[in-house]
Amino acid sequence: MKKHVVGIDIGGTKLATVVADKTGHILSKVRKPTLSKKGPEYAIGLLFDMVREAVSQVGLKQEAISAIGVSCGGPLDTKTGVVYSPPNLPGWDALPLKARLESEFQVPVIIENDANASALAEFRFGGGRGYNAVLYMTMSTGIGGGIVINGEVYHGANDSAGEVGHQILLPNGPRCGCGKQGCLEALCSGPAIACRAQAAIQKQLEDEETVTAMLTLADGRIEDVKSEHVLAAARTGDALALELVQETAYYMGWGIANLVNILNPDIVLLGTIAVAAGDLLLDPIRETVLKFAMTRPAEAVNISPAQLGDALGDLAAVALVV
Amino acid sequence: MKKHVVGIDIGGTKLATVVADKTGHILSKVRKPTLSKKGPEYAIGLLFDMVREAVSQVGLKQEAISAIGVSCGGPLDTKTGVVYSPPNLPGWDALPLKARLESEFQVPVIIENDANASALAEFRFGGGRGYNAVLYMTMSTGIGGGIVINGEVYHGANDSAGEVGHQILLPNGPRCGCGKQGCLEALCSGPAIACRAQAAIQKQLEDEETVTAMLTLADGRIEDVKSEHVLAAARTGDALALELVQETAYYMGWGIANLVNILNPDIVLLGTIAVAAGDLLLDPIRETVLKFAMTRPAEAVNISPAQLGDALGDLAAVALVV
Repeated sequence: MKKHVVGIDIGGTKLATVVADKTGHILSKVRKPTLSKKGPEYAIGLLFDMVREAVSQVGLKQEAISAIGVSCGGPLDTKTGVVYSPPNLPGWDALPLKARLESEFQVPVIIENDANASALAEFRFGGGRGYNAVLYMTMSTGIGGGIVINGEVYHGANDSAGEVGHQILLPNGPRCGCGKQGCLEALCSGPAIACRAQAAIQKQLEDEETVTAMLTLADGRIEDVKSEHVLAAARTGDALALELVQETAYYMGWGIANLVNILNPDIVLLGTIAVAAGDLLLDPIRETVLKFAMTRPAEAVNISPAQLGDALGDLAAVALVV
Repeated sequence: MKKHVVGIDIGGTKLATVVADKTGHILSKVRKPTLSKKGPEYAIGLLFDMVREAVSQVGLKQEAISAIGVSCGGPLDTKTGVVYSPPNLPGWDALPLKARLESEFQVPVIIENDANASALAEFRFGGGRGYNAVLYMTMSTGIGGGIVINGEVYHGANDSAGEVGHQILLPNGPRCGCGKQGCLEALCSGPAIACRAQAAIQKQLEDEETVTAMLTLADGRIEDVKSEHVLAAARTGDALALELVQETAYYMGWGIANLVNILNPDIVLLGTIAVAAGDLLLDPIRETVLKFAMTRPAEAVNISPAQLGDALGDLAAVALVV
């Protein structure tokens, strides 16, 4: 009986392979740096070895593996299993990742973009359990999203659904990594929060003598202020940091309100920065959603931190095949 | 063999009942004014009679009817079939419409909000045929929406999905009927276009001696300028009307770009005003979507006028039960 699966989590900086049982319990794990500059062939060779290593770590033979799930940055085509130049994986251009893995291991392989796979993991194992309409949103270096409807990832026409971070709120706002201006991501991702914080600190230094705790936390170097410093300073009551948290919650709440009106989710699960910030950020987000969304969908939605934390990457890959 | 269905279209100003065969061909139709001030009991009694009349018009007995589909303004609960005070139907408060009809006619009744039912009709009989991810948007007195995924209406947590007209673009923008500010509907519905046109004409009259063709078309009365006059004047090359069309396309395109990023639809079907305007409005909408949406979903989407025209209301109700 094939009672085990392999999960592969492919990121721009690290690769991970895990073996899990059919209930999603992780039994072994291998991690290596992606060394993305070495290109896809290096990474694929490494992944082949890492899969074998994770399998042998639990004393299994390859024949015990029923399927492989792969969570990878998009864009990618879930039907053909071809990856199309994810921004964090230079050279992975029209790479037939599914075919390569199936050929090597002779088992079915399912490939999914990381935000969608994470959404599915939260549905299967985390905060989305039991809900029919689940929206998961990352809030880290970017703002990605995944939509799970009746237990299945919603892909849209060409696997591009759920790009919730690229809804445009301010058409003349800050430039986004995607090339447009004023996307939610350009306002509320970690780097975007840091950027707004640095500008606000600069202005404060010019206008008054106060020194924000954010600057102290970053050892006095404005250019080193990050979103973590904003949250830490806000917790100590630092006025400027609290303003930045409110501003972030306003944009997040506005964007989520639009999503609530469009998708009417049972639950919105917010990852990473929202998990770290907790109610400090979530409460003003919830208030903004109530203010901006229509009453009926706003009353139906639960806005919560994602639950899987550091296990998310592994479980994202595993969720695809259990 | 029960080879026929009844469709009921309930609007704030008119009621319609039709009999159709299982392929959606309308065989008979009865129309009456809703006289919404008379309340729901009057309308329900009238509907009972109108159903019987439509059935007898085609020489059928009631036993030949297999099901009744009802398209009605929301909010309503599709599972229980209870209608909750639609804005255009005063007094229809927690009205068990499905139960009342099932009790009267002893056949299964399916109730759906009109925008969702219209989306399903476009999927079954109109511009959405053959597509897996269909977004239909009305563009008339309001901007409603319906999402059809793999041939089924997407309802969300509590039948509120698809309120695409209430995504907020300008939080300090014009007041919307829903109570919020700057919703897409408050910028691009028929009345919203008229309102922007009237303000622009007023300003033009104060600033210069030009008289826009819009004003001529409305017999010189600014307060009578409607969205139809904007379109008609734009077709004659009237500069101010063309500006208003461009502005409308900018907001519509912005809103649709957000929807394209979130839902990645195969097709977006735009009703009423967009049908009347054609490429005059659709071309600049398409340009704005290409500018504002991400490349992959923008390349996948087809933005087209809805196809069912005046038949939409009847087919919306029928689509629920064929």
